[in-house]
Amino acid sequence: MADSSWTSSAESLKGVILDLCGVLYDSGEDGGTPIPGSVEAVKRLKASDLKLRFCTNETQASRDKFVAKLQKMGFDISVCEVFSPAPAAVAVLKDRGMRPHLLVYDGLLSEFESVDQTNPNCVVVGDAAGNFTYENLNDAFRVLIGLEKPVLFALGKGRYYKEADGFSLDVGPYMKALEYACDVEAEVIGKPSSVFFHSVLSDMGLQPHQVMMVGDDLVNDVGGAQLCGMTGLQVRTGKYRPSDQQHRSVKADGTVDDLAQAVDLLLGARAGPL
Amino acid sequence: MADSSWTSSAESLKGVILDLCGVLYDSGEDGGTPIPGSVEAVKRLKASDLKLRFCTNETQASRDKFVAKLQKMGFDISVCEVFSPAPAAVAVLKDRGMRPHLLVYDGLLSEFESVDQTNPNCVVVGDAAGNFTYENLNDAFRVLIGLEKPVLFALGKGRYYKEADGFSLDVGPYMKALEYACDVEAEVIGKPSSVFFHSVLSDMGLQPHQVMMVGDDLVNDVGGAQLCGMTGLQVRTGKYRPSDQQHRSVKADGTVDDLAQAVDLLLGARAGPL
Repeated sequence: MADSSWTSSAESLKGVILDLCGVLYDSGEDGGTPIPGSVEAVKRLKASDLKLRFCTNETQASRDKFVAKLQKMGFDISVCEVFSPAPAAVAVLKDRGMRPHLLVYDGLLSEFESVDQTNPNCVVVGDAAGNFTYENLNDAFRVLIGLEKPVLFALGKGRYYKEADGFSLDVGPYMKALEYACDVEAEVIGKPSSVFFHSVLSDMGLQPHQVMMVGDDLVNDVGGAQLCGMTGLQVRTGKYRPSDQQHRSVKADGTVDDLAQAVDLLLGARAGPL
Repeated sequence: MADSSWTSSAESLKGVILDLCGVLYDSGEDGGTPIPGSVEAVKRLKASDLKLRFCTNETQASRDKFVAKLQKMGFDISVCEVFSPAPAAVAVLKDRGMRPHLLVYDGLLSEFESVDQTNPNCVVVGDAAGNFTYENLNDAFRVLIGLEKPVLFALGKGRYYKEADGFSLDVGPYMKALEYACDVEAEVIGKPSSVFFHSVLSDMGLQPHQVMMVGDDLVNDVGGAQLCGMTGLQVRTGKYRPSDQQHRSVKADGTVDDLAQAVDLLLGARAGPL
């Protein structure tokens, strides 16, 4: 059963932000498969009077590439509607004149082509997956420990995500490994950073209380959005686990079976009482 | 210059515990090389009236193997004088009837041969070095996240150690990665655990205040020993870094250039005033 008390605020909403992986599709070796009903749900949101943006911590491919993948799955989505950590990190690095050593997935390297990477004075860690070899993590560690004041940027801090064959480690655990090794605290770029969410709200031209975030990650999607003043809705797809409902610090404003149900309830409530 | 105020308590000492890597030898691809003067220093301690034990977080080889390596370097050392985490872990696992999934260096597997490893109900992580692939860490994570109550044992929690070509990540960062991924706290077996140090003291038949620990690791050797009530002496070899002297919570009772100088000063002070 869906708890639908969150729909009472549906009328005042002016925008929706959707997470991608675990909400629109499940990832897997073949690039992933759409979650049933999600293609249609995005279509319905786009046809409504709500503004729509997508906000992801995806760092295994450049934005162009993973948006193309989603379009191929049938989603009505374009690059300019999608916010992801790599372009945000590039802006931060350029702004501060920093030269990164990159520990990221090969598919993400092209996003950083415009940034000077000679003689690194910081490390950027993303979800490098198979690139998280001992040697690569050690190389990043040696850059950090060789700096007078180590600076570490993390593209998100997720614990794990769901793939076709089970849960897989995300960037967060590797961020923690480097933090501990060098006794530093990483600067997180991406969800749940408020700076990141505010860049999306600013693009939408909306205030936090006018927007609802829908995600499968209780801490990074729901909790991050709530900290900004948005409504946070969790779907029971992707990395959702029943134990999320007993989390010690984050409580979703609502929980629904999937995006299709979220859109059904949301648009139904906006259409007025039955 | 060596600060020698710590020698004032030399007369009351009845035993010495030495760390191995970074105190007796520097590790490297060729198995490592003795630190100048350390072979002779061990010999002098053995010839004295002080009891001597060795206490290491070495988990890249079985005790037999790394003691043989040290003997080949010229050290007067035998297996029964050496305390390392793997045998201690085996005792804990058997005592609690736990079946480990092992994420350790290949050379350590033989230490766990007597332990049932079918259908694992815990994970043991050691310094697996090159075995810390993404796939292997993910396998360990999946075991933990699949347990109702994840149990993680770490063979030490060192941040890094020194090799011939620079610093290398130790087990600690990987322990932190798994802790964060599964929201658990690891149980550390090895230094700086008091349980581990007390097992050495018990074997020596001495009280903590009668024993001095000599190591290169400020937190795990010096801090751990001090928490037990021992004197903690740091050598400026191995992973020693000048910034250790500004550490926010651990302050060594003394700092010396190397083991040779430590033994010189210690035995000199015990011989009485000049």
